[in-house]
Amino acid sequence: MYDVAIIGSGPAGLSAALNLKLHNKNTLWFGSPELSAKVEKSELIANYPGIPMVTGADLNRRFRQQIEDMGLVLTDKMVTNISSTRKGFMILGDNDIFDAKAIILATGAVSPKGLPGEHELLGHGVSLCATCDGFLYPGKTIAVFCGSQRFEHEVAYLAGIAEKVYLYTTYADCQVDLPNVIRLTQPMAEICGENRVSSIRLKDGEELPADGVFMLRPAVAAATLLKGLETDGPHIVADRQCRTNTPGCFAAGDCTGRPYQLTKAMGEGNIAAHSVLDYLAEMEKDH
Amino acid sequence: MYDVAIIGSGPAGLSAALNLKLHNKNTLWFGSPELSAKVEKSELIANYPGIPMVTGADLNRRFRQQIEDMGLVLTDKMVTNISSTRKGFMILGDNDIFDAKAIILATGAVSPKGLPGEHELLGHGVSLCATCDGFLYPGKTIAVFCGSQRFEHEVAYLAGIAEKVYLYTTYADCQVDLPNVIRLTQPMAEICGENRVSSIRLKDGEELPADGVFMLRPAVAAATLLKGLETDGPHIVADRQCRTNTPGCFAAGDCTGRPYQLTKAMGEGNIAAHSVLDYLAEMEKDH
Repeated sequence: MYDVAIIGSGPAGLSAALNLKLHNKNTLWFGSPELSAKVEKSELIANYPGIPMVTGADLNRRFRQQIEDMGLVLTDKMVTNISSTRKGFMILGDNDIFDAKAIILATGAVSPKGLPGEHELLGHGVSLCATCDGFLYPGKTIAVFCGSQRFEHEVAYLAGIAEKVYLYTTYADCQVDLPNVIRLTQPMAEICGENRVSSIRLKDGEELPADGVFMLRPAVAAATLLKGLETDGPHIVADRQCRTNTPGCFAAGDCTGRPYQLTKAMGEGNIAAHSVLDYLAEMEKDH
Repeated sequence: MYDVAIIGSGPAGLSAALNLKLHNKNTLWFGSPELSAKVEKSELIANYPGIPMVTGADLNRRFRQQIEDMGLVLTDKMVTNISSTRKGFMILGDNDIFDAKAIILATGAVSPKGLPGEHELLGHGVSLCATCDGFLYPGKTIAVFCGSQRFEHEVAYLAGIAEKVYLYTTYADCQVDLPNVIRLTQPMAEICGENRVSSIRLKDGEELPADGVFMLRPAVAAATLLKGLETDGPHIVADRQCRTNTPGCFAAGDCTGRPYQLTKAMGEGNIAAHSVLDYLAEMEKDH
């Protein structure tokens, strides 16, 4: 069992990971090798104390170097579900289950809304994870919402199973070019079906039959991730110690609200790490 | 009238100053050329995202360079009093008065207690500022509590006015060597007097007559600085937006509580700056 799991590899997750490493905590860190797409794409950062006028790409490169130097390890699995257990938390990352005494959510700003029908049909044809549920669709027709280039290998994976894949990407330069992948130019507007997905409806009204829909986004909305977690619109409600309403679950960075700023996220990652240390010490005492 | 005054030049004050500069706010920034003695003295910092394993002195050097590059200006005056006015705040820095619409307190961790008698006799022989009140003691006997080497020139200034100076320093390598300055080896334990300072009592019980006492510390305790400011022990009570109970007064960094950490302070400096921007925009609307 891990002491703590960090979900997210942006500045908040990084700051938390650095501090927990220094305190020798057995930490599981979920994130992408790219760390943060938002940082990577920042043109020029002028308000980073100690590193004047730095491009996002350069800062991200420094972060990656530091991670390597510190011996930190990132686990590139998509966390789609977390549940409270008697001893802590059970985390579903791709198809694997992990246990941790405490968790830090540093998932970034995520729209909580999703598509109409998405929440209702989740687990009934709507999936958040290609690796987890792709095997269910051999010879079937599926639709894929792809929110980042880093998921394109998952689209390819799904195309290797399904007969037909409707693909919508939120960005322009998609590299997927496979005979059974049909690119949608219209955004998906709704996921339809009574008790199970039967079709998707596009923005222009066109309806396409589909057996399943994969929503591949950089992060899963907090309220979907962990049942009972208190949220305020798109944000996780956290106090000044980065505690949420769920004991042992802490939150840091853009997911806790504005300002969406690097140093704010780093600061909260630091606070969350220290709150985890307090929490673990308290747990120890009780045993 | 300034848009905003920042009190403190540690990581919180720096982060706030950088952000307000980028937003072209007319900012008055109080602090010491050394920036933060606490940072300067940090042996090795391992948890600073983007700058691995940096000495405090090196980080402080980078901060100073950035300040210069950004055209930020520090005002090296000791802020000893702030009061709310109809239009904002009136700030007493050494002997000068400054006006600002909003303030950010980033004064670091300051003990609120002081010596027994200090609070009661403040303004009645107890002074927080040599430049302000030194002229009151020609030919008199005074005691000086010196909390940082940066105040030694003030000790010398006072020695040029008073006949006799009892000096206690909180550090070892004091450079003051003047015939009328008597170094105390025992710490001051109490400031005595009925309605005015009459003597100081040392830890070993010895009582020395004194007409005035100067308490020279890196920062003044928040509750002394601004009347009515809500505090919790040594800390200023601030919410997640770094707002205090006093409208227009924000707080960031160690002065708001633990963890006493660089990134936490920087994050709060950023948040406080953004809260000031919101506050100023709101003020504009009302006019």
